[in-house]
Amino acid sequence: MTSDVYVPTREDKFSFGIWTVGWQGVDVFGGAVRPLMAADRAVRKLAELGAYGVNFHDNDVFDFDATNAERDERIAAFRKALDETGLVVTTATTNLFGHPIFKDGAFTANEREIRRFALAKVMRNLDLAAELGAKTYVFWGGREGAESGAAKDIRAALDRYAEGLNLLSEYVIDQGYDIRFAIEPKPNEPRGDILLPTLGHAIAFINELAHPEIVGVNPEVGHEEMAGINYAHGIAQAMWHGKLFHIDLNGQNGPRYDQDLRFGAGNARGAFWVVDTLLAGGYSGPVHFDYKPPRTEDDEGVWASAAACMRNYLILREKAKAFRTDPEVQAALAASRTAELSEPTLVPGETWRDVRDASVDVAALGSRGMGYEHLDQLALEHLYGVR
Amino acid sequence: MTSDVYVPTREDKFSFGIWTVGWQGVDVFGGAVRPLMAADRAVRKLAELGAYGVNFHDNDVFDFDATNAERDERIAAFRKALDETGLVVTTATTNLFGHPIFKDGAFTANEREIRRFALAKVMRNLDLAAELGAKTYVFWGGREGAESGAAKDIRAALDRYAEGLNLLSEYVIDQGYDIRFAIEPKPNEPRGDILLPTLGHAIAFINELAHPEIVGVNPEVGHEEMAGINYAHGIAQAMWHGKLFHIDLNGQNGPRYDQDLRFGAGNARGAFWVVDTLLAGGYSGPVHFDYKPPRTEDDEGVWASAAACMRNYLILREKAKAFRTDPEVQAALAASRTAELSEPTLVPGETWRDVRDASVDVAALGSRGMGYEHLDQLALEHLYGVR
Amino acid sequence: MTSDVYVPTREDKFSFGIWTVGWQGVDVFGGAVRPLMAADRAVRKLAELGAYGVNFHDNDVFDFDATNAERDERIAAFRKALDETGLVVTTATTNLFGHPIFKDGAFTANEREIRRFALAKVMRNLDLAAELGAKTYVFWGGREGAESGAAKDIRAALDRYAEGLNLLSEYVIDQGYDIRFAIEPKPNEPRGDILLPTLGHAIAFINELAHPEIVGVNPEVGHEEMAGINYAHGIAQAMWHGKLFHIDLNGQNGPRYDQDLRFGAGNARGAFWVVDTLLAGGYSGPVHFDYKPPRTEDDEGVWASAAACMRNYLILREKAKAFRTDPEVQAALAASRTAELSEPTLVPGETWRDVRDASVDVAALGSRGMGYEHLDQLALEHLYGVR
Amino acid sequence: MTSDVYVPTREDKFSFGIWTVGWQGVDVFGGAVRPLMAADRAVRKLAELGAYGVNFHDNDVFDFDATNAERDERIAAFRKALDETGLVVTTATTNLFGHPIFKDGAFTANEREIRRFALAKVMRNLDLAAELGAKTYVFWGGREGAESGAAKDIRAALDRYAEGLNLLSEYVIDQGYDIRFAIEPKPNEPRGDILLPTLGHAIAFINELAHPEIVGVNPEVGHEEMAGINYAHGIAQAMWHGKLFHIDLNGQNGPRYDQDLRFGAGNARGAFWVVDTLLAGGYSGPVHFDYKPPRTEDDEGVWASAAACMRNYLILREKAKAFRTDPEVQAALAASRTAELSEPTLVPGETWRDVRDASVDVAALGSRGMGYEHLDQLALEHLYGVR
Repeated sequence: MTSDVYVPTREDKFSFGIWTVGWQGVDVFGGAVRPLMAADRAVRKLAELGAYGVNFHDNDVFDFDATNAERDERIAAFRKALDETGLVVTTATTNLFGHPIFKDGAFTANEREIRRFALAKVMRNLDLAAELGAKTYVFWGGREGAESGAAKDIRAALDRYAEGLNLLSEYVIDQGYDIRFAIEPKPNEPRGDILLPTLGHAIAFINELAHPEIVGVNPEVGHEEMAGINYAHGIAQAMWHGKLFHIDLNGQNGPRYDQDLRFGAGNARGAFWVVDTLLAGGYSGPVHFDYKPPRTEDDEGVWASAAACMRNYLILREKAKAFRTDPEVQAALAASRTAELSEPTLVPGETWRDVRDASVDVAALGSRGMGYEHLDQLALEHLYGVR
Repeated sequence: MTSDVYVPTREDKFSFGIWTVGWQGVDVFGGAVRPLMAADRAVRKLAELGAYGVNFHDNDVFDFDATNAERDERIAAFRKALDETGLVVTTATTNLFGHPIFKDGAFTANEREIRRFALAKVMRNLDLAAELGAKTYVFWGGREGAESGAAKDIRAALDRYAEGLNLLSEYVIDQGYDIRFAIEPKPNEPRGDILLPTLGHAIAFINELAHPEIVGVNPEVGHEEMAGINYAHGIAQAMWHGKLFHIDLNGQNGPRYDQDLRFGAGNARGAFWVVDTLLAGGYSGPVHFDYKPPRTEDDEGVWASAAACMRNYLILREKAKAFRTDPEVQAALAASRTAELSEPTLVPGETWRDVRDASVDVAALGSRGMGYEHLDQLALEHLYGVR
Repeated sequence: MTSDVYVPTREDKFSFGIWTVGWQGVDVFGGAVRPLMAADRAVRKLAELGAYGVNFHDNDVFDFDATNAERDERIAAFRKALDETGLVVTTATTNLFGHPIFKDGAFTANEREIRRFALAKVMRNLDLAAELGAKTYVFWGGREGAESGAAKDIRAALDRYAEGLNLLSEYVIDQGYDIRFAIEPKPNEPRGDILLPTLGHAIAFINELAHPEIVGVNPEVGHEEMAGINYAHGIAQAMWHGKLFHIDLNGQNGPRYDQDLRFGAGNARGAFWVVDTLLAGGYSGPVHFDYKPPRTEDDEGVWASAAACMRNYLILREKAKAFRTDPEVQAALAASRTAELSEPTLVPGETWRDVRDASVDVAALGSRGMGYEHLDQLALEHLYGVR
Repeated sequence: MTSDVYVPTREDKFSFGIWTVGWQGVDVFGGAVRPLMAADRAVRKLAELGAYGVNFHDNDVFDFDATNAERDERIAAFRKALDETGLVVTTATTNLFGHPIFKDGAFTANEREIRRFALAKVMRNLDLAAELGAKTYVFWGGREGAESGAAKDIRAALDRYAEGLNLLSEYVIDQGYDIRFAIEPKPNEPRGDILLPTLGHAIAFINELAHPEIVGVNPEVGHEEMAGINYAHGIAQAMWHGKLFHIDLNGQNGPRYDQDLRFGAGNARGAFWVVDTLLAGGYSGPVHFDYKPPRTEDDEGVWASAAACMRNYLILREKAKAFRTDPEVQAALAASRTAELSEPTLVPGETWRDVRDASVDVAALGSRGMGYEHLDQLALEHLYGVR
């Protein structure tokens, strides 16, 4: 096989956050290693690499304290780049975490004034998002949390979180925007503990909202894996709920700081199952990468890593398809009775009365092997490319 | 203060699983260190120590393959001990994980026969639970999961999980049992990844059931902490959803194997906030301990550890109350504007239009400290008993 | 490429613990799922699969409380299988963890009598190990640890640990056995915290022994990864110290219970670097697998998983070699200046005086990229088999 | 008891890094929340609070690119504050991680020029450290590591690390400085994996150096706990090796990002055992705090948190002493046979021959309980202050 099959096209719907390739490398222990990258440059380069779309925070395009003139100028440059490249704004979001005003949260800041300011900031960027055609608006509440136990009344915080999202839902509906919301969960960092730490907590929360139908989740590989949770299982559950509105793909090595490695790095085996799960579930949204080029990289390394995210997805997509169509795999799946799980436990018309006294050959069923090791080895060999 | 205030009474509603004090110490690397303890002995000893109730798996009372006569005999002894001691059966559950037949799960086993057998086993024990007066029936799906990616179709598994719980809900309703269900989440162990890994995933799942009103969660300290998730935050969210039907208290030291330490051991600081959160939320169910006396302990050590669980809860309850009524704490809470979080962000009558152009003194709000370190230090000093 | 190249031969020096394929599936939550497997059967089956050697605990061959006659009989059967198959006993070890007597440790049990008993048990099995030709004797101190802070005086425990190993070193030397010792570290499970939690702690400890030259380490993939530590880095450091006497290969998914997955499962990307590191360091000992076939498997699944361990090593070995000889990789390594790290910082003859006032072009060096993302992508594509 | 007993004095030897109280709050997701704090201000405020000493990076006092005049001016102000307050410089260190030039490491950067520059930077600050009377010089190699497998030849990197420390040892010896080195291990963050990830790895490494006698470790609570390793056990082992040259106290909640909470926060129970272990081992060095006041805090909160670090140490010291002198604890320790672990396993004059056939009452020893739960409960009640 030649590597030509791994060239991204617009049909692949690959998208990137402007902040990903634009990350300058500031961390807790060191300063910027790369110069500021204007949003329009990011757009042009991503287009060259074969991306389909972008996602942006308001302050990826213009500074927090930009004047209106500066804001307009930066937006115009961004839009010009979009127009000239044909890149789509698939998604937008708000920076509610960088400025000191959000140090205790935005929608759940103890201070009401800050909450109101945060909502206004979102509404203003929703207008821009709508203008630019974004269909999904992401809410990552990175500062919605606490380092200590009395700081935050969690139930009150959830009330305020819901109030905020309800107000913004009303806004979107009233404005007639064709926009859905996607909550991005994270267990910790930069706060000691963050509200809605996993996609499970977020979906549970959404069910309490005034407009649950327009709110889903945007789970990120690394965020779920920071909690040691299987990301492929997570997105499968999100799809089961009809709530997988968006995805953030990247790489992570288990519970530790948020690594935001390029997709494919980190948990390589997990990445295979992620792609397999997206294909099986018929996910059709943008295939979005939310990663950070390591500080060791210069501009060339930034684009090498961005290109690699897409390439790895294409490689894994091919592998996942080959896995599912491999006759030996199909035989192994049959031997493992995996399809039997899709058969209802009750035959149509049965009730608990028909099961109440179910009696089985306990010894036989107990000793029957599932054949999973053979099946999993086939999968691994597809990942290795040796089948 | 004397320690007499830490003597448990029935009003404290402390309960234990029969399997906790009855754990013989079998683990992956070693055999039993303590003799088998009959359920009735556990009941009598727990009653002596001041417990209020017990929780049991069917196979804590009688063996998996007990004949009907043996089963009846064991139940009779158990019931006799309950009657004589006045201990309440607060909760019951089913062992769907010990026997080889459940090696691939129970409600989500690939094999339909096993799923039917599992449901029958639950129904049979629901009858016993109802007879014995249990009001809560716990579902810990420890074997509902997988070690490898193709073994389990997660969406089909969730369908079957829901089907099973729906059938059992029907059963309880049809039988007129006054029993509610509580799902106990766990991220992994004994399976590589377990379905419904956190309380968030479980609450999200419950919302899809046919009778969500009778299904809640039974979160366990150690299980959530194995995912690095703040347990106090978790139960606060569960209460916010009205879904905290039961709790399992114990101790754990972060992401590692399931330690099931006595309550108070492990994350001592977290335990304080757990009790504070239960008090604040008005939790009134059984205060249940699900722990394992370490293998180093003999029978005397078993009872010492059981007594300590209750004692530690009483100590922490006293501390949490003292914390909340301490005037200096109240001043610190005020300085941290914690109560302001309970104020709606919108004044009654306001809509997004009133917030759309919210303007604030960004510099002033950005530089204003929250005073959380002072507040948290007061809490710690209450934990230390030096205030 | 055909898969014929992945057929193990004796030259590959693959070995297995008798307890790996013989694991019956007992865990904290459930009983045996597979019948007892005699050591001689394990030997014969492993030989069929292409293994070169085995490792055994005394109680893998005969029971803890076997009579001498039973012991002799079981050993004879084991030896017969070895003779008939030509399988080598590369390694042996002692079960100092299964019996209740070791519940508080063996060499570091608080009770002196238990420590003496443990040493005697080891000496007796060292005799057998020597008889059977084992060149390495492993010490996994799984019960040497504590669940609570006052239980174990750590410094005294290290004294006793050293005393025990010193005595056993004397024994081996006095008997003229051609045997070296290898300490196998683990951070926790089955104890809350285990002494010598990582290979670093173990190598530091070895330097305090009376005969450090005959003591090295036997690091296990999963044990180091349970601490979130890079295993390839760890074995590289062990080789740097000349202390990598043996390795235990398997699979793990980060900090959680000890999964003992087959080699290749778990951290697939890490496994590639493990093999690359072993090749680069010229490791020539047995390539040993210490894993547990999941409880879902029957006898057929056991052997499928054992065969897969070897096959995956061969696949990864081929990939690692291809990676290192790929001209594009060599160019990328050059661009990343990796070889420059092997150049001493001082030129021969230089001292600190020649460096004291080193002045460099800070801006140029600060902005120069390392090209690691490109390099790592090439490695990943070798893992994927798409180059 | 009144809280007056918890007022720090110089005899307590409390010290802080200038960078701790001076942290401005820059993290990966947000900018500074507090103004720059000059080193001399930090000194004066810490003196007011009762600290004994400080630790500094060169660039805590003057900027990386300060001119000599600026450098001298900032040092003079720092020294003036030291003189006026009587605060001691206990320790110093080098910032080898903040500037882009160190993005791939300092002593183990692939580029030789950078390694030479790093060594020069250290030597220059060693001169200042000696001038200011520091007795310990810390090496935290935060950027010595990698995000990907081929980037760094680990064995070559350890060669260079050793070469660097050997050169610096020569420098200190040749200059006649009364300074010892202390390596501070960390498993990850800001690099994906850091060399010498735990104190065990660092002590093992030190044994290979040219002047091991002047090199020890400076373990940090949070860094070891990020690997899930028991910090009290770790420092006990370091003391056993005679290598605990310095300590960094703070708080952490298990494997996640480096939280640097104030001492007492995080693992409260662990902190008790840390203090107990330091007392038991006769640690007499500075009691150093390396923490970061959370971003939620203003200047007042910074000092509240610094004061709390010292106060918590004093509280825990009192508790640890009370625990060890409590007659009931002493009885419990005796019941747990903890002192027996200090008795050599061999009686003087015995050899392995005297142990070779040790025979014990296996059943009796196997069933004898260790009483650890009772003992640990007494410890917990001391922590709670209810005894």
